[in-house]
Amino acid sequence: MSEEVKPESVSLCPLGTAAAPEPELLCIFGTGDLGRSLGQRLLQSGYRVVYGSRRPHSCGPLPQGTQVMSHAEAAQSASLVFICIHRENYDFLETLAPQLMGKVLVDVSNNLKKNLYPEANAEYLQRLIPGAHVVKAFNTLSAWALQNGPSDANRQVYLCGNSAEAKQAVAETSTKLGFTVLDRGSLSAARELEDFPLQLFPEWRLPLRLAFGLTVVLFIYVVIRDVIYAYVVQGKDISFRIMVSLANRVFPVVSLIMLSLCYLPGVIAGFLQLYRGTKYRRFPDWLDRWMLCRKQLGLLALAFAFLHVLYTLIIPIRYYVRYKIGESTISKMRENRTSVFDTTTAWRSDSYYAMGILGFGVYLLLGITSLPSVSNALSWREFNFIQSKLGYLTLFLCTFHTYLYGWSKFLYPSSYKWYTPPAYMLSLVLPSAVMVLKLLLLLPCVDRTLTRIRQGWERTDPEDVSKKLLLT
Amino acid sequence: MSEEVKPESVSLCPLGTAAAPEPELLCIFGTGDLGRSLGQRLLQSGYRVVYGSRRPHSCGPLPQGTQVMSHAEAAQSASLVFICIHRENYDFLETLAPQLMGKVLVDVSNNLKKNLYPEANAEYLQRLIPGAHVVKAFNTLSAWALQNGPSDANRQVYLCGNSAEAKQAVAETSTKLGFTVLDRGSLSAARELEDFPLQLFPEWRLPLRLAFGLTVVLFIYVVIRDVIYAYVVQGKDISFRIMVSLANRVFPVVSLIMLSLCYLPGVIAGFLQLYRGTKYRRFPDWLDRWMLCRKQLGLLALAFAFLHVLYTLIIPIRYYVRYKIGESTISKMRENRTSVFDTTTAWRSDSYYAMGILGFGVYLLLGITSLPSVSNALSWREFNFIQSKLGYLTLFLCTFHTYLYGWSKFLYPSSYKWYTPPAYMLSLVLPSAVMVLKLLLLLPCVDRTLTRIRQGWERTDPEDVSKKLLLT
Amino acid sequence: MSEEVKPESVSLCPLGTAAAPEPELLCIFGTGDLGRSLGQRLLQSGYRVVYGSRRPHSCGPLPQGTQVMSHAEAAQSASLVFICIHRENYDFLETLAPQLMGKVLVDVSNNLKKNLYPEANAEYLQRLIPGAHVVKAFNTLSAWALQNGPSDANRQVYLCGNSAEAKQAVAETSTKLGFTVLDRGSLSAARELEDFPLQLFPEWRLPLRLAFGLTVVLFIYVVIRDVIYAYVVQGKDISFRIMVSLANRVFPVVSLIMLSLCYLPGVIAGFLQLYRGTKYRRFPDWLDRWMLCRKQLGLLALAFAFLHVLYTLIIPIRYYVRYKIGESTISKMRENRTSVFDTTTAWRSDSYYAMGILGFGVYLLLGITSLPSVSNALSWREFNFIQSKLGYLTLFLCTFHTYLYGWSKFLYPSSYKWYTPPAYMLSLVLPSAVMVLKLLLLLPCVDRTLTRIRQGWERTDPEDVSKKLLLT
Repeated sequence: MSEEVKPESVSLCPLGTAAAPEPELLCIFGTGDLGRSLGQRLLQSGYRVVYGSRRPHSCGPLPQGTQVMSHAEAAQSASLVFICIHRENYDFLETLAPQLMGKVLVDVSNNLKKNLYPEANAEYLQRLIPGAHVVKAFNTLSAWALQNGPSDANRQVYLCGNSAEAKQAVAETSTKLGFTVLDRGSLSAARELEDFPLQLFPEWRLPLRLAFGLTVVLFIYVVIRDVIYAYVVQGKDISFRIMVSLANRVFPVVSLIMLSLCYLPGVIAGFLQLYRGTKYRRFPDWLDRWMLCRKQLGLLALAFAFLHVLYTLIIPIRYYVRYKIGESTISKMRENRTSVFDTTTAWRSDSYYAMGILGFGVYLLLGITSLPSVSNALSWREFNFIQSKLGYLTLFLCTFHTYLYGWSKFLYPSSYKWYTPPAYMLSLVLPSAVMVLKLLLLLPCVDRTLTRIRQGWERTDPEDVSKKLLLT
Repeated sequence: MSEEVKPESVSLCPLGTAAAPEPELLCIFGTGDLGRSLGQRLLQSGYRVVYGSRRPHSCGPLPQGTQVMSHAEAAQSASLVFICIHRENYDFLETLAPQLMGKVLVDVSNNLKKNLYPEANAEYLQRLIPGAHVVKAFNTLSAWALQNGPSDANRQVYLCGNSAEAKQAVAETSTKLGFTVLDRGSLSAARELEDFPLQLFPEWRLPLRLAFGLTVVLFIYVVIRDVIYAYVVQGKDISFRIMVSLANRVFPVVSLIMLSLCYLPGVIAGFLQLYRGTKYRRFPDWLDRWMLCRKQLGLLALAFAFLHVLYTLIIPIRYYVRYKIGESTISKMRENRTSVFDTTTAWRSDSYYAMGILGFGVYLLLGITSLPSVSNALSWREFNFIQSKLGYLTLFLCTFHTYLYGWSKFLYPSSYKWYTPPAYMLSLVLPSAVMVLKLLLLLPCVDRTLTRIRQGWERTDPEDVSKKLLLT
Repeated sequence: MSEEVKPESVSLCPLGTAAAPEPELLCIFGTGDLGRSLGQRLLQSGYRVVYGSRRPHSCGPLPQGTQVMSHAEAAQSASLVFICIHRENYDFLETLAPQLMGKVLVDVSNNLKKNLYPEANAEYLQRLIPGAHVVKAFNTLSAWALQNGPSDANRQVYLCGNSAEAKQAVAETSTKLGFTVLDRGSLSAARELEDFPLQLFPEWRLPLRLAFGLTVVLFIYVVIRDVIYAYVVQGKDISFRIMVSLANRVFPVVSLIMLSLCYLPGVIAGFLQLYRGTKYRRFPDWLDRWMLCRKQLGLLALAFAFLHVLYTLIIPIRYYVRYKIGESTISKMRENRTSVFDTTTAWRSDSYYAMGILGFGVYLLLGITSLPSVSNALSWREFNFIQSKLGYLTLFLCTFHTYLYGWSKFLYPSSYKWYTPPAYMLSLVLPSAVMVLKLLLLLPCVDRTLTRIRQGWERTDPEDVSKKLLLT
């Protein structure tokens, strides 16, 4: 508001351009859910809205304050038209080409599947009405997000189109609706935008497959070592143990392996940078992809740890466990044996549980801080502290927990049925290696070099001095 | 920044209107918490601020860089005045009517209760100073949100007023403060806006009442079947079982019933659309309301499931359980009985626990993805996948868990004390029905028709062809 | 949208300034991660971008559509230059002083540690190029946030600088990028902004220290009372109990004390306001600071409660517990004792567990609603209801849980080893006091006075009547 506005005068209109006695009029083709939501939101943001419909007189409830007319009339009344129609019905728009000449057409449509049509909906629309300026936009937002306003990840409107002016007009409207605009270039990007809402956890696929593969392989491994071994060697059927005992042997192993896979790429990257003496060369592709799915690896590991906790806590109410404890008490009684309380075992078993609980606690904390709203509220240094320092603490606690579980079992030949090690031993290899490598990187001399490299210093490349100028 | 700015020149000033050597001046009446927070935020966003106060010389600490003067003086210096005063003290503003003539008055006030006054605060203000342009705005934000800036749901500023120009002026300021503006129409909407901050979980009421009702009814049911039955028929007092055993019988039943109530309306809606052959007719009101509270139903069901888990896990440390196990071991010993290990029971009980844990795990995942920041980060297809596919998986696992719990008990007449079925049987009715109905909807022929209907196809209405054009 | 787009008319262009045939050009010095991310984001938001580099022909991959040139050339082509260079390399910029004359320089740099240099980076830059207008901005955002767009807490851009015009130019760009701008005043605030990303949980320090101190002191206390007492008086070594039994005695005590410390300052503030008869006098500093860390106190208390829950649930699988139960069954058998089932004990122990579980459940709910994205979605009244009403319910349930745990133990002298009370008794003092004080504040007469004070009424200050006018 400017100083010129005199308190006594009635004209307010303090805004940049001339007084705007009437808000801008926009047109929406289509009166479905999306058209209605969009219209309501536009109204609330101060626009006037007119709908174009094939049956202007019987098109159901529309937001109060809007008008409905035929497509042709509606198109002529506004310079920006939202096309809220299914792609299958675009063909009739060809007949409106004269009225849509020079207009900005906003294609908001999505498809039900990828690659359903040879060309993107927006490109098809442009081909039908070559005289109009087609902009692809808003298609990543649901009717719900349009009606209720932007929030977090739903704040971004991606748009693309061939006319810069048309894109700017759509960008202005989006901004006024409270969205942030991201320009994805020319209309040839439309297919990419149309594929966005059809994505199904692309970044989760690799970690999920890995988790599934590990689980299956380990399950088979423990079934062979336990159930089949018992059946073949001892002639006993202990297959009932599959549901809980064996599952609870697989889950913690998968969890620990995946947790260490979370931290392994960081360590590898460190050694690679040390070896190369620079941080300006790209990592190999596999390492890049691995580093990008660390969060997902960690969260899956947490899920397996969670299952391990619950499977452990129900142990004492299991029929099998109760039966065994009862029988052992009775047989002790009958044989008049007295068992001696072993303080070392008490220490070991209690430490084992304590480490597990503390490890799970820190782990949960890591999981909570990876919630978008929590991690967004952290400063970079705080996020780094949690994901790195607390992450390695988790890894240490969980590995120590597993070592305490194993204790001296690795000494007894009976542990190696059919010459195979128990599953928990397999799970210790990776985390132990990660921790040893990490400790090497923390040695003062190594750490100093690595820190310098990460600040932009390069070892052997004298003509590349200017690179040091770049901020990391 | 505009093109006119020449790199060498010093004048920057690229912004819409003429060079703004001095930022705009706004006025705030009232120096309380809200007035101070608002003033600070306005300052930080580049405005100049002047306070109007009855005691300009003794009104406590104000943000640095602001001025304080009498109400009359302050009013004359700016064209936009924020009224940060309690409604009870509005009457004195009447004396300032000449100075406030033609000004934009922003009413930010709230009441402590609904319907405290016959008219909305903003309407009262407009009546007191008919010559001013009253705009209701900012009242849904706390002083805290005003001071610390917008975040998520606190980003929206609702406003209403009779003057479009006045509303636009306030909208400009809100936008500059980082808020998104939603215009709610004329000043008659002020009461609605003033009721917003007084809402207390309106969408949770129905689900909470339902959960409470179910819990009470089922508690009475199990108390009668267990405690009173034992007292009347067997003459035993087992009332101590109320606190944990009976509660743990009620919680899972309530949880499972509420979970199936979550998915029932979707199934009903599907059948309704199939029957009507169109998706363009509105659902009955009760179904609409039911569908709107599915999220709340699901979260309450999760809460009950959580209680069920904890109540189950403490079973082995309960005094009663320890006593019973000890006694049974001793009596077995005395009577020299040997119990035979039953592999079927072991399988059944372990499967029962495994299903329960897995069900609870997927359930928790559903709960986590319903956190606003998580669900906002999902694409529509991802959200749909989780809430629908994983939702039905949860329902299946939990129902299967309950069937395994029941096993063959339904065959024994002793289960039907006083001819009533056990509570767990009651809980199986709804989820089983929901799953059967859902399976019917998934039959290829039914599913194909339903998908076409949901894409806009209509069965029997030849003159309504144009509806197919609407995007869903 | 520009004037050139002719629908059939020329005027599309409802937007403020004149047609913008070419987007604005911005310059970035430095082609590191941050420079690249910033460039990409600027491109996507519709700017043209030119990079300044020392080696324009070998500076690695830059965003498509940008140009690279020498620093001098780049500087001349745009009026706004982002300095994405490490402070250590600022000195070379001095040679560019003529080209940078009158330009807006945006300093986005951060340091690795606090107080590394005598002056802020931005002030140093200003000193090097006195003819430019230095604005500190964007430094609180990570390269990641710049590339992926604003979200939640990462939406705010803090800026400071001596030229209002330069700040406004940067503010415009920030807004177009989707960020909210907060002006922190002149360039002397730069140091403060540069310290922001180096903060490490400042608001968590006090609560963390408190929790750590309490834990250590109480651990020593219970070790002395249990392990050392047993060793000295009874000559037994029960040190193995440290890992789980004693830890599980310390955690709930710390949790309950910290939970009551959450609610104590509110009660104290109430009494202070009652005593002073006004709410317009500031609280003492210690009370202010205490009230500001209530959320952190509460979350730490929840973490301890969580550990307590897990430590409790693993009780029945501990070696020590299984041994003891087995032995007690055998000895009962041998001595032919029969223990009588005690209904009171059953009631007490079950109620004790039930209270604990319910308390933990409500507690978790409090924790969930303190997640930023959840609390942002609540109205002020809802947030208040949860944090206050449910908070006190939690405190009551947990305190009651502890009373039930203690039961009549306080009557037996054997509880007071070495004349010291058990730890759980110590934990009851504070919560009991808080609840009694809160009840006093809820007495109708007291409550009425306090409500009036909080609405702005003052008791004894007749000349201060105008204060009543201020909104609270």
